[in-house]
Amino acid sequence: MKKILSLISDDFEDLELTYPTLRLREEGCEVVTAGAEAGHKYHGKYGVPWESDITFKDVDPDEYDGLLVPGGWAPDKLRRFPEVLEIVRKINAAGKPIGQICHAGWVLISADILRGKTVTSTPGIMDDMRNAGATWVDEPSVVDGNIISARRPPDLPAYMKDYIKVLFS
Amino acid sequence: MKKILSLISDDFEDLELTYPTLRLREEGCEVVTAGAEAGHKYHGKYGVPWESDITFKDVDPDEYDGLLVPGGWAPDKLRRFPEVLEIVRKINAAGKPIGQICHAGWVLISADILRGKTVTSTPGIMDDMRNAGATWVDEPSVVDGNIISARRPPDLPAYMKDYIKVLFS
Repeated sequence: MKKILSLISDDFEDLELTYPTLRLREEGCEVVTAGAEAGHKYHGKYGVPWESDITFKDVDPDEYDGLLVPGGWAPDKLRRFPEVLEIVRKINAAGKPIGQICHAGWVLISADILRGKTVTSTPGIMDDMRNAGATWVDEPSVVDGNIISARRPPDLPAYMKDYIKVLFS
Repeated sequence: MKKILSLISDDFEDLELTYPTLRLREEGCEVVTAGAEAGHKYHGKYGVPWESDITFKDVDPDEYDGLLVPGGWAPDKLRRFPEVLEIVRKINAAGKPIGQICHAGWVLISADILRGKTVTSTPGIMDDMRNAGATWVDEPSVVDGNIISARRPPDLPAYMKDYIKVLFS
């Protein structure tokens, strides 16, 4: 059974957090949600509630087989936690799949793991992605090694199909 | 390619409408959303927006391979449309899969297709389900012939696994 870490903060894009989590549970994975607080009910930008299991500080990156970063406004908060960036860097260094969708790229930019990578994101942060050293393309889902990226909620089916393929490859 | 009909009205349970729709798209299905109005932006009970493609009156049940009914408060509205009940009855008579989750059972009750069936739902409508002739059980996902049922959002992974199995069997 694979164990996946999902990062949360308020104003996540409701479907971009919930769809990947439920989808990987359907695939038999354990998905653990980490926030600044444990056992805290966070809310998506539309208001969907989702509870964190553990805090960022509780995370041992070695225990996980992959990472999910949601979009919405949550990434603007997530990138400010040094422990979040450390988690992202360690999971990336281990070559484990990292999924980013929409504005999630901001977190990967701050972890400085996008140099030389081909990615997509919401077009809103395309310039930030390029300035961080990535090649930006406008496609529903993009896989470059362990980095899987997508643009927006309607891309979720293509995104998760790719994420699952990389996770189980 | 399978073509699935999804029913919508305001105050649908956000994940119970969106997860099955996106999930079946991931599986290569075409999912068409029908509401009282076409091209109308409905909102989930937490506020997630979702647009209808066609009206109930536009639906030819023969064109579809399956039906999805979301939970939330939408079923309380959906059951009031005679054309919705007619769609449900025709899809049921053809033995095609009908997925109901949470409060969606109200629509199947009003279509009077639950006699002798074993189902689950939110415990809140357990008595309504029993009074409509169903055997009610408290399980994450229940399959009885072409009727697939689940209780609430955390059951979505088990529910869609079962729905997909029935749809492609």
